[in-house]
Formats: sequence, structure tokens, C-alpha cells
Amino acid sequence: MNVTVRGRTRHYRTVAFDARDNSVLLIEQRLLPHEFKVVSVPDFRATAAAIQDMVVRGAGAIGATAAYGLAQGVRAFRGSDLKKFQRHVETVYQTLKAARPTAVDPVNAMNQVRQAMTAGETVAEQQTLALAAAEDFAHHDVKHCEAIGRHGAKLIRSGMNVLTHCNAGWLAFVDIGSATAPMYAAQAEGKKFHVFCDETRPRSQGATLTAWELAQQKISHQIIPDNAAGHLMQRGKIDMVIVGSDRTLGRTGEVANKIGTYTKAVLARRHDIPFYVAIPLSTIDWNLKSGFDIPIEERHASEVLGAWGVTSRGRREYVRVANPGSDAFNAGFDVTPAELITGIITPEGIFKPEELWANRDRLGKTRATPK
Amino acid sequence: MNVTVRGRTRHYRTVAFDARDNSVLLIEQRLLPHEFKVVSVPDFRATAAAIQDMVVRGAGAIGATAAYGLAQGVRAFRGSDLKKFQRHVETVYQTLKAARPTAVDPVNAMNQVRQAMTAGETVAEQQTLALAAAEDFAHHDVKHCEAIGRHGAKLIRSGMNVLTHCNAGWLAFVDIGSATAPMYAAQAEGKKFHVFCDETRPRSQGATLTAWELAQQKISHQIIPDNAAGHLMQRGKIDMVIVGSDRTLGRTGEVANKIGTYTKAVLARRHDIPFYVAIPLSTIDWNLKSGFDIPIEERHASEVLGAWGVTSRGRREYVRVANPGSDAFNAGFDVTPAELITGIITPEGIFKPEELWANRDRLGKTRATPK
Repeated sequence: MNVTVRGRTRHYRTVAFDARDNSVLLIEQRLLPHEFKVVSVPDFRATAAAIQDMVVRGAGAIGATAAYGLAQGVRAFRGSDLKKFQRHVETVYQTLKAARPTAVDPVNAMNQVRQAMTAGETVAEQQTLALAAAEDFAHHDVKHCEAIGRHGAKLIRSGMNVLTHCNAGWLAFVDIGSATAPMYAAQAEGKKFHVFCDETRPRSQGATLTAWELAQQKISHQIIPDNAAGHLMQRGKIDMVIVGSDRTLGRTGEVANKIGTYTKAVLARRHDIPFYVAIPLSTIDWNLKSGFDIPIEERHASEVLGAWGVTSRGRREYVRVANPGSDAFNAGFDVTPAELITGIITPEGIFKPEELWANRDRLGKTRATPK
Repeated sequence: MNVTVRGRTRHYRTVAFDARDNSVLLIEQRLLPHEFKVVSVPDFRATAAAIQDMVVRGAGAIGATAAYGLAQGVRAFRGSDLKKFQRHVETVYQTLKAARPTAVDPVNAMNQVRQAMTAGETVAEQQTLALAAAEDFAHHDVKHCEAIGRHGAKLIRSGMNVLTHCNAGWLAFVDIGSATAPMYAAQAEGKKFHVFCDETRPRSQGATLTAWELAQQKISHQIIPDNAAGHLMQRGKIDMVIVGSDRTLGRTGEVANKIGTYTKAVLARRHDIPFYVAIPLSTIDWNLKSGFDIPIEERHASEVLGAWGVTSRGRREYVRVANPGSDAFNAGFDVTPAELITGIITPEGIFKPEELWANRDRLGKTRATPK
């Protein structure tokens, strides 16, 4: 998407590759929203570290980063010995996989790259095929998000107020995003609407990343405390909700997403407000039979007990907000049942949650699926 | 309640009076939870400033502070000229009233003091009566909260998990609190239970004040993000909700309280979890006919866009969390309809919200009522 830095507007992707010096280009997300910077990552070990250290985050974005990182490592090999080359490829693969061991997207992405490489016979051929496959993965991520936007934009009318939670924006993908894709597409169609961004405590991705994205695209928006959506709905100020998903169960239509998503779905139902989930196909889990089987990550209490921000002197600091003697409970995700979901916006169209299974061939069940 | 500072446990009230040097004693709430300090406020102008600057906050607490502040100003008068004395009393009254112009509690409290003073003939008699009336107001605030605790404690059983929102604790009253009163009473009866404190963004009174209170009383508790209650309820981890109220409509049973209260009530209803509101009688509004007529204060966006806390170097700082180009919407309160409220815990017993009006005489309709 377009980013304006010191008055100059340029198009950026969250993840890109510079073949000239074999580097992965990443938007340094830990500096946002206070500073915009693209880092050039010089080798695959540094790319793995960038995934591990959250320079880049979000399903599509870390998938593409791992795919590019694998191509980067593969291309760095010097020589033509295929045995040595294969050992090297395995090292690169395992290094990148270990950077975020519970994520499925890097593994799926790298498997596509390795699969493509099998068509090459020489080291040089395989190196060429690896980069082409990584570029292909990134290209498909963008096309997927564009298709989500095309379908979802039909739901947004001028004058609407749209609520979103957390960040399922272009910073979580190679470009465009999932929950934000319908907004960007609707804007491109000339529609005028307003977005309320839940700040999304404890990590505040709504107040930081989503608000930054919407400000860059000049979409009218306001940040609200996670406590405020109920009040706004009660006063008729929210017309629809669009969120992303970390995992959607293909068998039941249940959606695991950032903590607080379920609460917004319950509120939306009470007020008869449509509640949509926008997802890339890679996040559909065709195996699990119940949302209660989805492991819910418990994160460190310090995220709840304080906040990261910038002081009046411009220094990035963590401040402890809470009572020093008290502990916190910090579940990263919650599960929204299918009955609260109006529709699931996919690259293949909008489905009711209970329609996913019947459309499983179209929705990619035969392709890789999270384990 | 008891407070332990550097290993020494002592009993404190949020607001007290030292007749020897005519000073109002206040717990400096802006330093909590990071530092516990009682300030001695030397004259009525400084007491008005303490109310205005939020050294003290909460309905009962600012009522008692205004009552003591009026007595303090009245007692500082030198001489026996009744005309001059009355002009002085009026100055004190108006100064304290102007400190928090929209609050009803200071006005109600001071009116009680002035009413009591009419029984005195000389300046000296009126000065004595003023202090006695202020002490009486504070005493009744404590007795009210004790009665709330006595009735509410019956609802809490050992092993329960109780959710509370914001701070309706003893720091908001002279002592004991409203929403916390049943917890303190249940603890005194030997019951063991766990409290989840919503952090209560944007001002984080749950993470700071309520958590501090519960830690001081050694009640098992955890702070949770405002996003987490829905997930906990879905997983059967919350057995009841108790919150306070800023204004309860005597005619309809609707409750205005800190933003996010309504959301918790909607979630509780979905999960068939009892939702209680604990209130002192002074917060019942017998005039308004609809919750939509309650003015909802819109506060400064900066509260939502950042957070106050303590840095690693021990400095109290505001950090900006949100995207610098973005604005926020910051409503201070929301309104919960009667149908979502299981019961209203008052000093006179527990009532269904629709029973308030029928019991209006017992619940003090004839006494002062918020305007």
C-alpha cells in the first residue's frame, strides 16, 4: 500500500525481495506507528532472527518472509555439488522453521518453495526456481487479499461505521490485508465510511498498526477503548464488524482470533449488527472438530500489567501501569462460535460459517492445512 | 481498611479529619498503586484543589471531602460577627462546589452540613455543629458501605470467581466501598474466592486501584484485559459479576457506570451469569425517566491514545501508545438496561432493578437526589 514519509508517497509491501544483493526487505513493525523504516536483511540467519524477534508478524507476512528467506539461503550457496547443496538447503529450512515453531504459514510457504525446486536439476536451476516460487507465494498472498477485498467491499456502503479489532491489515500480509481488504477496496470504489479501531489491549495492535494503516490510506477512523464498542452499538453508531482470524475451523465455522473478538461478536448479535470474518484460505483448519480443541496461547502477564509507548522526550519505553503486587491472566486468543458469525469473507466469496465444509474443495481443503 | 506500608499494617480511611490542626487527611490517589501516601490538606482552598486535581475521587469520597472541607473552612473563621461569618461560609461553600461542578455528592454533603449548622446561634456553636455534621456524613458513608457488604456477602460462596470492573472500592468512599464491600464482608466470614479485575481502560482503575485494594486485603485476584471476560465466561471461569454505579435510575433500574460495564452485562446474560450492581443510596436518580437522558461525559482523547505508568527507572510517565496521526473517541460511561441486571445491592437489601421505584421511600427518595 502507499506510505507517506516526510511528504513523499511511495508504494511498499510488508515483505519484498531485492535479487541484486539477495536481501529480504521488511517493514520494521516494532517501530510502528512511531517510525517507518524498511530494513534490508542480508542473509537467511538474519531473516530467521527477524521472524523470531517480531520485526515481521502476521500469517501471510511471515509465510512470505520464510519463503523469501529460504530462497535467499538457497541462492547464497556457492558451488555445484548437489549433496552439499541439499544439506545446505536443509539447514536453511530448519533455521527458518525454528524461528516461530508454532506457526504453520512459514512451513507451508517453504514447502511450496522446496516442491518447486524439485523441477530443477542443477544447483543453479534450483536456485532460480526457489526465488521464482517465493515470488509466486508472495504474489498469491496479494491476489488472495485482493479477492477478499473485492468480495468484502460489496458489504460496505457509503456512510457506514465499521468496527474492527486488532490488526488484520496489510502489515500482517504481503499487502492489502484480510479484515482491511474490504475497506481499501471500498475506498477505491469511492465509498466514504468511518472505521472504529478497537485499541486491542494488551498489545494495542488496533491503536498502533491498524490506526497507522488507516491514517496512511486517509480512511476516516477513531481509536476506541475495547470497552466502548458496546456503548457505540447501543447508540446505533456501528453498522458492521469485520475482523480477521488466526484459525477458522472448516468443519464447524468457529473462528479463533485475538482476545476480545468473541466479545464483539456477542455484542453485535445483541444489536443485530452483521459480524464478518475475513480470512485467507491458509488459515482454515480442516481437521479440528471443536473450537474447544484449539490451543489458546497464554502470554506473559507483563503485557497486561503495562504498556509500550513513546515518552514526551521521544524515547520508546515500557511503563508498568498495574499494582506492583498483582498478577495478570493473559490469553492471546478466544473462539467465536459459528452462530454469531454473519459471514466469512474468503478469496472465493462470502460463505456462511456452516457452508465452509460443503465448499471444502473450492476452499482448498486438498492443499496444506494447519496441524 | 488495613494498609501495609513497609511491613507495618495500619487502618486508614480514604478521607479523614484532624481537628487538632484543622486539616483534611486524604490518601493521595494519584500516586497509587505505586506509592501510598496520606496528605494533610491545611485549608479549604487546598481541599477544593485536591478535589479538582483528583487527589481524591469517587462519589462517597468526594462527598465526605467536601463536607470536611466546608467544616474546615467554617472552623478557620476568626471572630463572632454572624454577618461576616455567613459571607465566609458562602465563599467556602462555593469554592468547594466549583471544584467538581458536575458532581452531586459534594453538594448533597455540604447541604447536610449547612442544614445542621442552622441549629447553632453563635459562630462557635455553628463551627462545632459543622464538624459534627461532616463527621456524621462520613460515618454514614461507612455504615452504608458496611450494610451493602452485609447484604452482598450472602451472594458470594467459597470457590467462586467474581468479576469486577473499574474501582468501586473503599478508595472511592470513606471506607469499604460499594462493589468491593461484599468481597470484604465475605472474606471476613472466612470465604475463599478469586476476583478477576478488568483493567478498565482507558484510565486503568481496575489494574491500579482495585488490584491495589485486593492485594492489601490479601484477596486472591488477577488483572485481565477488558477483552478477556468473554473468553473466561465462555470457559466457565466466572460465576458472578459485581460492579458499582455512578447513577442508577430509580424509575427504570438502568445503571450508568464506567464504560465497558454494559458489555460485561451483555456477556453475563449470554452465559447466564448473575450480574449485580452495588450502590449507595445517594447515587439513585429519582427524576430521569430514561437511561438515554443520562449525559455521557466525553473525555480527552489522550487517555485512550496512551497510558500512565512507571518506567524502569521508577519515573511516573505518560507514554503515547497509539498512531500519532489518529484521534480517539472516549466516552466515560455507558448505560446498562434493567433487564440485564440480576440485582441491585443497596444498604437496605438486594432489589431487582424494577423494584426500586416501589421501594422508593425505603431507598431515600425523599432525601436529596442528583439533578
